[in-house]
Amino acid sequence: MSIDMLAVHDLGNRAVALLDELAAITDEPGRVTRLYLSPAHRRAADRMAEWMRERGLSVVEDAIGTVRGARAPDEAGPSANKRLLIGSHIDTVIDAGRYDGNLGVVAGLLVVEELARRGTKLPFGLEVLAFGDEEGVRFPTSLSSSAAVSGTYRPEWLDMADRDGVSLRKAIADFGGDPSRIREAAIPKDSVIGYVELHIEQGPVLEHKGDALGVVSSIAGQSRFRISVAGEAGHAGTVPMPLRRDAFAAFAELAVAIERLAREGTGNLVATIGRIELKPGAVNVIPASVEATLDIRAGADAPRLAAIDRIRHEAERIAGRRGVTIRFERFADAPTCPMDDSLQDLLAASVASLGEANRRLPSGAGHDAMAMARSFPSAMLFVRSKAGISHNPAEYSSPSDIGLAVEAMVRFVEKLAETHRA
Amino acid sequence: MSIDMLAVHDLGNRAVALLDELAAITDEPGRVTRLYLSPAHRRAADRMAEWMRERGLSVVEDAIGTVRGARAPDEAGPSANKRLLIGSHIDTVIDAGRYDGNLGVVAGLLVVEELARRGTKLPFGLEVLAFGDEEGVRFPTSLSSSAAVSGTYRPEWLDMADRDGVSLRKAIADFGGDPSRIREAAIPKDSVIGYVELHIEQGPVLEHKGDALGVVSSIAGQSRFRISVAGEAGHAGTVPMPLRRDAFAAFAELAVAIERLAREGTGNLVATIGRIELKPGAVNVIPASVEATLDIRAGADAPRLAAIDRIRHEAERIAGRRGVTIRFERFADAPTCPMDDSLQDLLAASVASLGEANRRLPSGAGHDAMAMARSFPSAMLFVRSKAGISHNPAEYSSPSDIGLAVEAMVRFVEKLAETHRA
Repeated sequence: MSIDMLAVHDLGNRAVALLDELAAITDEPGRVTRLYLSPAHRRAADRMAEWMRERGLSVVEDAIGTVRGARAPDEAGPSANKRLLIGSHIDTVIDAGRYDGNLGVVAGLLVVEELARRGTKLPFGLEVLAFGDEEGVRFPTSLSSSAAVSGTYRPEWLDMADRDGVSLRKAIADFGGDPSRIREAAIPKDSVIGYVELHIEQGPVLEHKGDALGVVSSIAGQSRFRISVAGEAGHAGTVPMPLRRDAFAAFAELAVAIERLAREGTGNLVATIGRIELKPGAVNVIPASVEATLDIRAGADAPRLAAIDRIRHEAERIAGRRGVTIRFERFADAPTCPMDDSLQDLLAASVASLGEANRRLPSGAGHDAMAMARSFPSAMLFVRSKAGISHNPAEYSSPSDIGLAVEAMVRFVEKLAETHRA
Repeated sequence: MSIDMLAVHDLGNRAVALLDELAAITDEPGRVTRLYLSPAHRRAADRMAEWMRERGLSVVEDAIGTVRGARAPDEAGPSANKRLLIGSHIDTVIDAGRYDGNLGVVAGLLVVEELARRGTKLPFGLEVLAFGDEEGVRFPTSLSSSAAVSGTYRPEWLDMADRDGVSLRKAIADFGGDPSRIREAAIPKDSVIGYVELHIEQGPVLEHKGDALGVVSSIAGQSRFRISVAGEAGHAGTVPMPLRRDAFAAFAELAVAIERLAREGTGNLVATIGRIELKPGAVNVIPASVEATLDIRAGADAPRLAAIDRIRHEAERIAGRRGVTIRFERFADAPTCPMDDSLQDLLAASVASLGEANRRLPSGAGHDAMAMARSFPSAMLFVRSKAGISHNPAEYSSPSDIGLAVEAMVRFVEKLAETHRA
C-alpha cells in the first residue's frame, strides 16, 4: 500500500473535528470535565449514538451506559458470527485534555467511515464501543464499563458512592441504565476476534524516540504502597545529630535507594513517590513520622516484584541502622497485562506499511484494554503525546500523527480481514 | 561548701510545688496553655507578683507585662547601685510542659528565699524577672519582653496581629500595659552586673552524658531556609526513569547530603528538614515541585556558615545533574550568641562545688538570654530534661536535679557577691 499523505492529514483533521465537538460537552463550562454518569456524559453518549447511526451502525446502550455501534459482516463465512471490537472511553478527568479516551472511540467511527468510503468488505462484524467509566474519578471503581463488556463486573461495586453519597446503583438508574441487567452487557468470548484500542501515549517515550506510533507490548503491572516511617520527634536545635531518630532523614535515604533500584531495574521499571506527609511538620521539630506513597510499575511482573523485594530489604537495613521502623502497606496491586501477540504483530505490520518505525513499548498507564484482555485477545496502538502530557488541557497529539494512527487502524482492520479470508 | 542532699531535695520539691501551682493557671483546662497577654498570663503574672511580695521583693509590672521583683542591696559599696538579674518567661506553648521558662522564674524566687534563710548579704541588688513573650506563639514576635528590658524593643512589632486580628498594641493595653511607655522598661546597661537564667535543657545531651547540670557556652546561631525544587510533573507510569525531572527525588538526594554534611560538621552542628510539601501530591504523579524548610544551627557561626555554603554547593550540583532548579530563601537568621565568660566560669564553679561534672554545652534553642545578651553580660544554666522532651506535657526534670540546679544558682549568687566584695 502506498501512503497518501493528504488523505492521512484529512483523516487526522476529521478526527480532531470530532474531538473538538466532544470537548465542548462538559459539566464545567470553560474546561473539559465529563465524569461517569454525569449530565455531560449523558449528552456525549447521545451524541456518540447519533454519530454511530449517521455512519450506518446499529446502536444500543448497555445497562451501565456503554454506547455500542455494530456493523454487520459484509461476507458470509466462518467468521461471520464473530466481531472485532474497537473502542475506548468518553469519560474524562476533571479539567481534562480532549484526546485521552475520546480518540479511541473517534478512531472507531473513522474506521467505519473509511471502510465505507474505500468499499472494504469485512468477513466479520465490527463494533465500536464508547465506555463510560475508565478514569475512576467520580466513583472508586475504574474500568467498570469494560469489565461489564468482558463479563468481569463485580456487583458489589454498585454499593459504592460518590462524594455526594450517591450510590453507583442509583447513578446508573438515573442515567437511564439498569443495574439489574449488567450481566447482559457481557459479550460472549467466542464471538470476539479481538479488541483494539487507539490511545494517546500519555508519556514521552514516542516523542523522545522520534516516532509517531507505537504498538503496546503490555500494560504495566503496578503495585502501590503506603510507606510509614516512625522515628522520634525532637527539638531541631537541641538534639545532636548522632542522637536523632529523624523519620524524614530515614525516608530520604530510602527514597534515594528506591530511585537507584528503579534505574537499575529492567522491564521499563518506574518508581514514584508522589505523596509525603511529615508529622508534626514544624520548621523546628525533627519529624517523628513520615507517611508516603510508592507507585511502582514495570512491563513485566518479575522485575517489579524483584524491585519491591530489594526496596523492602533496603528499608529494613535503613530502619535497623537508624533505630526507626519502616512499614509497607500494599493498597493496590495489578499484575502485568500482556497484549495479544498476533494482534500486536498485525498492528506492527500496519504501522510498518506507513513507513513508520516498528516501536513497541509497554503502557505505564492503565486502559480499558486491561479489563477487555481478561476475556478477549486485546491490543493497543499508541500515538505520540506532546511532552507526554495528559490529564491536562495541554494534552496534545498533532492532526498528522492522529491521521497516521487512524490510517494504521484502518489498515489493521483490512489486514485482519485478509487473515480471516485466508 | 559541703552538700546537704536533704536540703537540695527540699529545694527541688519547693520549686516543683510552685511549678505545679503555675501549671494550673491555663487558658485551656486540662492542659497547660498560657499564651502571651492571655487571661491565663494575666493571672500568672498576678500570682507571680504575690509570690515576689511574699518574699520581700518590691514589685512592678513593666509596660508590656514583665513582672519585676527587686531586692535592695544589703551592703553599701561600689556595687550598691548595681543589680543582678535572674529570670525567664511565664508564657508557654499550646499544650505545654510545666518546666520550660517557669523554672527560671521560680528559681529566682527560691534564690531570694534561700538568701533570706541563710542570712546571706549581697553587695548588689537582685531582680527577678518574669517575662511574658518568649515562645512567640500568639504573635509573630518572640523574646519581645526581654528585648524591652534590654532596650532593644522594636516599635513596629506593635502593629503585628494575632490569629484573631488583635494587634499587639491593643493586646498590651487590654492586659493593663502601656505601649507608649515601652522605652521605660529598659534597664540601664551600666546598672546591671549580669543576667542569669536557669532553664531545662530541652535536649537529650545532659541525660545522654549522665550529667544533671550544664553551663551554656553559647546560644546557637541559626539560619532557616525555604528550599524550593522545581522539576516537571509526569504520569507515574509512563515517564521512564531517565526522562524524569522528579522534584522529590532531587530533594531526597539533597536531604541525604544535608544530613551527611551536618554529621561531618563541627561546633555541634545540627540540620533539620521539618516541613515538606509536594505538588501536585498525587500517588500517580511525579512531583513537579517541592517546598521544604531547613533549620540549621551550631554553637558558633563559622561551622554553620560553612555548612550552608556546602549545602548550597551540593544543591547546585544536584540541580545541574537532574535538570531541576533548587532555590534557597533565607527567612530567619540569628548569629551565635556567646554567653559571658566570667559568669560561665562562676556558674561552672558553683556546679563543681556540688560535685557535679563540669559540662559545658551550646543551647540549640533560643532563650530570653539571647535578647538580654544584647545589653548585659548573660549566662545560662541547664538542667537535665528527661529524653530531651519539651513543649509537651511529657516534659520532665526530676525534683533532685531541679534542687541541684537551684542550689547551684544560690551558690552562684554567693560567689558573685564575693567577687564584688574583693
